[in-house]
Amino acid sequence: MAYFNEIGKINYEGATSTNPYAFKFYNPEEIVGGKTMEEQLRFAVAYWHTFTANGTDPFGSGTMFRPWDKFTGMDLAKARVEAAFEFFEKLNVPYFCFHDIDIAPEGDNLQETLHNIDVIVAMIKDYMKDSKTKLLWNTANMFTHPRFVHGAATSSNADVFAYAATKVKKGLEVGKELGAQNYVFWGGREGYETLLNTDMKLELDNLGRFLHMAVDYAKEIDFDAQFLIEPKPKEPTTHQYDFDVATGHAFLQKYDLDQYFKFNIEANHATLAGHTFEHELHYARINGMLGSVDANQGDPLLGWDTDEFPTDLYATTLAMYEILKNGGLGRGGLNFDAKVRRGSFEKEDLFHAHIAGMDSFAVGLKVAQRLIEDRVLEGIVSERYRSFQDGIGKDIVDGKANFKTLEAHARNMGEITNKSGQMEKIKATINQYLLTTFA
Amino acid sequence: MAYFNEIGKINYEGATSTNPYAFKFYNPEEIVGGKTMEEQLRFAVAYWHTFTANGTDPFGSGTMFRPWDKFTGMDLAKARVEAAFEFFEKLNVPYFCFHDIDIAPEGDNLQETLHNIDVIVAMIKDYMKDSKTKLLWNTANMFTHPRFVHGAATSSNADVFAYAATKVKKGLEVGKELGAQNYVFWGGREGYETLLNTDMKLELDNLGRFLHMAVDYAKEIDFDAQFLIEPKPKEPTTHQYDFDVATGHAFLQKYDLDQYFKFNIEANHATLAGHTFEHELHYARINGMLGSVDANQGDPLLGWDTDEFPTDLYATTLAMYEILKNGGLGRGGLNFDAKVRRGSFEKEDLFHAHIAGMDSFAVGLKVAQRLIEDRVLEGIVSERYRSFQDGIGKDIVDGKANFKTLEAHARNMGEITNKSGQMEKIKATINQYLLTTFA
Amino acid sequence: MAYFNEIGKINYEGATSTNPYAFKFYNPEEIVGGKTMEEQLRFAVAYWHTFTANGTDPFGSGTMFRPWDKFTGMDLAKARVEAAFEFFEKLNVPYFCFHDIDIAPEGDNLQETLHNIDVIVAMIKDYMKDSKTKLLWNTANMFTHPRFVHGAATSSNADVFAYAATKVKKGLEVGKELGAQNYVFWGGREGYETLLNTDMKLELDNLGRFLHMAVDYAKEIDFDAQFLIEPKPKEPTTHQYDFDVATGHAFLQKYDLDQYFKFNIEANHATLAGHTFEHELHYARINGMLGSVDANQGDPLLGWDTDEFPTDLYATTLAMYEILKNGGLGRGGLNFDAKVRRGSFEKEDLFHAHIAGMDSFAVGLKVAQRLIEDRVLEGIVSERYRSFQDGIGKDIVDGKANFKTLEAHARNMGEITNKSGQMEKIKATINQYLLTTFA
Amino acid sequence: MAYFNEIGKINYEGATSTNPYAFKFYNPEEIVGGKTMEEQLRFAVAYWHTFTANGTDPFGSGTMFRPWDKFTGMDLAKARVEAAFEFFEKLNVPYFCFHDIDIAPEGDNLQETLHNIDVIVAMIKDYMKDSKTKLLWNTANMFTHPRFVHGAATSSNADVFAYAATKVKKGLEVGKELGAQNYVFWGGREGYETLLNTDMKLELDNLGRFLHMAVDYAKEIDFDAQFLIEPKPKEPTTHQYDFDVATGHAFLQKYDLDQYFKFNIEANHATLAGHTFEHELHYARINGMLGSVDANQGDPLLGWDTDEFPTDLYATTLAMYEILKNGGLGRGGLNFDAKVRRGSFEKEDLFHAHIAGMDSFAVGLKVAQRLIEDRVLEGIVSERYRSFQDGIGKDIVDGKANFKTLEAHARNMGEITNKSGQMEKIKATINQYLLTTFA
Repeated sequence: MAYFNEIGKINYEGATSTNPYAFKFYNPEEIVGGKTMEEQLRFAVAYWHTFTANGTDPFGSGTMFRPWDKFTGMDLAKARVEAAFEFFEKLNVPYFCFHDIDIAPEGDNLQETLHNIDVIVAMIKDYMKDSKTKLLWNTANMFTHPRFVHGAATSSNADVFAYAATKVKKGLEVGKELGAQNYVFWGGREGYETLLNTDMKLELDNLGRFLHMAVDYAKEIDFDAQFLIEPKPKEPTTHQYDFDVATGHAFLQKYDLDQYFKFNIEANHATLAGHTFEHELHYARINGMLGSVDANQGDPLLGWDTDEFPTDLYATTLAMYEILKNGGLGRGGLNFDAKVRRGSFEKEDLFHAHIAGMDSFAVGLKVAQRLIEDRVLEGIVSERYRSFQDGIGKDIVDGKANFKTLEAHARNMGEITNKSGQMEKIKATINQYLLTTFA
Repeated sequence: MAYFNEIGKINYEGATSTNPYAFKFYNPEEIVGGKTMEEQLRFAVAYWHTFTANGTDPFGSGTMFRPWDKFTGMDLAKARVEAAFEFFEKLNVPYFCFHDIDIAPEGDNLQETLHNIDVIVAMIKDYMKDSKTKLLWNTANMFTHPRFVHGAATSSNADVFAYAATKVKKGLEVGKELGAQNYVFWGGREGYETLLNTDMKLELDNLGRFLHMAVDYAKEIDFDAQFLIEPKPKEPTTHQYDFDVATGHAFLQKYDLDQYFKFNIEANHATLAGHTFEHELHYARINGMLGSVDANQGDPLLGWDTDEFPTDLYATTLAMYEILKNGGLGRGGLNFDAKVRRGSFEKEDLFHAHIAGMDSFAVGLKVAQRLIEDRVLEGIVSERYRSFQDGIGKDIVDGKANFKTLEAHARNMGEITNKSGQMEKIKATINQYLLTTFA
Repeated sequence: MAYFNEIGKINYEGATSTNPYAFKFYNPEEIVGGKTMEEQLRFAVAYWHTFTANGTDPFGSGTMFRPWDKFTGMDLAKARVEAAFEFFEKLNVPYFCFHDIDIAPEGDNLQETLHNIDVIVAMIKDYMKDSKTKLLWNTANMFTHPRFVHGAATSSNADVFAYAATKVKKGLEVGKELGAQNYVFWGGREGYETLLNTDMKLELDNLGRFLHMAVDYAKEIDFDAQFLIEPKPKEPTTHQYDFDVATGHAFLQKYDLDQYFKFNIEANHATLAGHTFEHELHYARINGMLGSVDANQGDPLLGWDTDEFPTDLYATTLAMYEILKNGGLGRGGLNFDAKVRRGSFEKEDLFHAHIAGMDSFAVGLKVAQRLIEDRVLEGIVSERYRSFQDGIGKDIVDGKANFKTLEAHARNMGEITNKSGQMEKIKATINQYLLTTFA
Repeated sequence: MAYFNEIGKINYEGATSTNPYAFKFYNPEEIVGGKTMEEQLRFAVAYWHTFTANGTDPFGSGTMFRPWDKFTGMDLAKARVEAAFEFFEKLNVPYFCFHDIDIAPEGDNLQETLHNIDVIVAMIKDYMKDSKTKLLWNTANMFTHPRFVHGAATSSNADVFAYAATKVKKGLEVGKELGAQNYVFWGGREGYETLLNTDMKLELDNLGRFLHMAVDYAKEIDFDAQFLIEPKPKEPTTHQYDFDVATGHAFLQKYDLDQYFKFNIEANHATLAGHTFEHELHYARINGMLGSVDANQGDPLLGWDTDEFPTDLYATTLAMYEILKNGGLGRGGLNFDAKVRRGSFEKEDLFHAHIAGMDSFAVGLKVAQRLIEDRVLEGIVSERYRSFQDGIGKDIVDGKANFKTLEAHARNMGEITNKSGQMEKIKATINQYLLTTFA
């Protein structure tokens, strides 16, 4: 069955020629920075937003009625797999991502739930044989069902911890079965609603124990995916434990987990935490922990996770700058953890939205690559910190200085001269690169 | 000379009898939780807000004309010492805190600046002999002077690093000279204005080196104060490196500094970072890193550091709860890093503001102590996490569980039953404690 | 059938004696400010949060399984009416509020939907005969169904405008039938998602037309309820047209509607708009437009409408202060537009939450009344603005001054002397009133 | 004397040829939308940020040492005039703006202050004879001096009201003398710090009286400039009365001032109030009240007014779209109410920053003009609201519908069909226009 036949091609004027769905800027085969765009960008479609979401929001019911919605239960699950692989092919994306309950419905009991997963995983594996699209990562949804009302690995209820462990165990097995490149831990309800009834130390200790068990079990079954923590500051709980990358970094170090985990960084989560997207990527990069990216964007005037498709070219440019400086995404990718607006409820919007996002990151890639080739920012930084290349600066960096030698230097150095940081000129330069890259 | 003679006593109706300035709720000699209020609360006056600030804001010049302002230069510095010790005595506070440039003006060169400090430190030492008021902590101001425009220990200019080292070296010597209980590192401009011109890795590495040098030098001169990092997320720089306690914790661990430092936690910095005050205290406490407190409050509808005197009794109660659970503040204290409003420009406002803050924390102390004595929250928490006391929960906590034993448990456990978190009832209980403690 | 029998009485220690559900501070018969508490506070239960909501949030499904959920369709609607009146009686509240679809399910078509409403309205009317509980207000839900995806009165689709008109027409008829004191217009999706596709002028003109039609129809059927606009800044749409009270005031004036409407002010909407709750009440009050109140509270660190039950005693005190200064709520009331937390999913939580809110406003009432009786704030204000009582100040107020007479005064007046605003002292005073009212 | 001689030309590669300071995109003589860029954009330099500010912030002293700072008092004021006109000429800007105290220092008393203004105004008038640069607007600073601590027209002190009147009277005379196109009222401290000590009704009534007096006096002296209110939500006072355009609109209507005033809209003030820049422009435009623009930008992650030079091309494009749809700025202009960063303290940064802003608005102008020429958004809007062109939709717009005719329509219309709002596709289109306009 074909769900998207009537969409036809989406032809932007002057679109790149090699795409079935006629992007304006993304050309998977074009070489940028020594690799193809497809290799650099490693786009992934998020199963949940695209095949299971229906446009509900806290004030309204679903607006999106998909053709596969005529089915229910396992038939619906199967229809979604068909729709998904058709969509992947039409969009020509190399990766996808899912939570367990995105692909298979919960059964009446745990056994049935696990069985449902097995059935659909087998079907997906079969479809993957004929598809270029691979599994970027999978994960376990441990926040939707009421049993997780007080958390999963950080629940106040030990039975819930056990249930969560069972789900992640299955997730690791599924990841191995489908050749997942990564396995993601987003702590959906790992946090607290109010400190007044919370044993935060026990909860965090338990989370540490849980993640160690996951590491151990992955080793046991020889599943070598990269493990990723996905930080988020608030929502659904009032205070999520993995507030931002730095908080996750503190946690991983404290529980001796930092060697096993990197970060899956989402743009909208970054801004909700009070950071720019590029800050979070940068922090992870300089700590060797930039794993993968949830490519979306928020609305800076709204205080919740809007998960918009990414179209802000400043954000995509600076994100791709960090990624290129990181030597690429490694096993990670750019997963569109983004949903069409509730008002964009037509099937064609799914295409327009993904194309908007893919084009925006393609633009970001090309502009960032030019900035790097021309050593625009490297040049500025290198000049700015020149004083650490020799003399007292080099002594500091080499560990040869102490407060007494520094005081001796300071007493003799005369007037200090600083130089302008030139933010305005640099921002104008970024604009010039943005506007002239496609000239 | 007496600067505050005309203020006389401030007599609230029914004020506690033992105070010269007639508080309503604070009675330094009253025993709460096995210690006097004075011992529990360890109040400190902030030199900068109370004796050097004049009410300027980004849109207006000073409104506060103090009697000591008729002096200039070193004479002004000396007059402030006189005023300060008169104020400490009238208010009967056990501690005070200062930055180097609060007490002594910068000279024409580094030598003169250091000399000015020596002169005033000697005077302060002399005044301390006849005063009960001790030095809670001192610190170096490395953000006001234009030389620190791009930071101090994280400056792009090695000369500035050396200058900063000289100031902290002096600060440690001064702390030792005056018997400071703690030494505080607030990274005034340790952060960035824009990532586009910033070498964040070098800057953080340099900050790590700087703090190690401080640790080494304190050892060398046998200065045994507790070292404290004070987190703040933004302002003055767009992004401060010590964003919050968790970020500081990540940094200290990474640079092997966590054994040497605790945190000085400010209420208004907490809320600017997206956390409650009690969250930051709690996080530090369960990591054994709650050092001291900058007692103030922000306006939740304003996005900058307003440094108001603390009057929110919910905040003071929950803060004192964390502090009592911590076994007290140790060498730390409650420093009023708070300023009278620009519109509260009269000398008498300085008294009203401090009394408002001291009374508010006294109330918080007494309500928190009652909550603890009645095991209100402990009871709730203990009951809520009971499942980790035996069975599978105990196995988890004892490190005896793994994903396979947990799955075996989950497959057999039947329906999971959770219990209400009862936030509404708990909040009503807090209100009842608040309203009836002074009945 | 009795749904709440097993709850029994909730006995807070020392609770007021006249309440079946044993409040601590609320006593409906106690006289405060010349009226009973019940008359002053005019509490209302919100049908939607208490009888139809189930704890879903954007990341999770329902956690609240109520005994009436065993029914479906019209049977469920009827069971909810039974449960509601049982709850009203047990809680002894004088008012309730509902949207059309809270009480009756949508049918397969408009006719059936209207019929369903008629059936349930008749049942409610019948129950009201034996109940003290009256209808504070009703309204039409024009945001949940997908037909309202682009708004109702401001939809881009004229058919939707017509549908919305039909619903409000029915709402007015229902209000008349049940003796509603007010009729509320909350513009659920009256706003825009993006300006890029929006004709804001046409939409606002249409909203003006719609409200005039509502005024006309109410006159036609002789329904004399007070009409209320409920402002909210964002959510569900990115930008709601009735952003705050001032924005609503501008709109009502422009469209000559200000004589027909007052405001229904919600605490959480106020703070999301960047105002305190008391600011919005105050602005409405001094413009003679304070109609009614949605009594809840938000979390100042979260950027969405959390609709918590109100427990912040500062907010309830300052709100009751405005209400008392307004001469009371008139035909309005304090409607608990508040929901138990998703984690507070037990039936008993419904009682605890309402009691927490009612007690908190009872406290606010009593503290505010004492502040007024003692002329605490009036005294401060009167003294502060004394200069407008005579001389040039009186000329200004009396309209007798102009720029030339003012310049003449200014040239002769000498140095200006201002007085402290004393915010810190005033806040300490509020705390003293709060803590000693129940002594 | 020449202050900027050594700057020389700033030659961006490929800069437009006609500019002395070599912009990349701004060419004053280029025709866009039927006028020259200079006529469309009407750029103005803000005297305060560029000639009097020195880089102080709440945590640091000045970093900017300008060559004219060697003077003091009236000599400094005169040197600034020289520097300003040299800068205007080099930058080739058609307008400038100032507050009274930007151009002339306060004297020892009111008479001397007014005299100082007269002296400098005469000098400026003289310089204007040989300059193309005109006065876009002037205003009175009524927030910096401590006398305005509690406001100016809304002060609690009638003497301050009189002083403020004198300043505005002088401002109107100066505006007339120098041929100002507009006169701006930004309510620097017209707002409150706390409601607890505030008579908001008296203050707003007084503000209304004050503005009527200003209108009357301008008529009396035959000064025909456009009067402008500049909204801002918070800072310096906790709550500013002119929160946003809608609040100003409510105020102006209530006090019968709406016929005399338009708005001066600042980007950073818009976002602090929770609106986009284009929202505020749009609201003013559809109410016929778009007067002028303070062209700057904020940092969406910071909660205060950063007044950055505008470089965000999305903001400049959507702003210019509103301005073009408004038929241009009329007597208004684009005033750079923007300051170089504290770290951009070199003289050359003043040029780079202004050029960055001018180029960014030039880009916005050209992209917006293309969007209009191609009827991109008009086409979307026209199609989207088509249903109001005939049938029931036309009846609604024509005032021929009522609730009964609408119900009759609704009962017969069958299933409602909505169409997608297509936000993602529209955003992709905006990106395509942005990237290809300079191809």
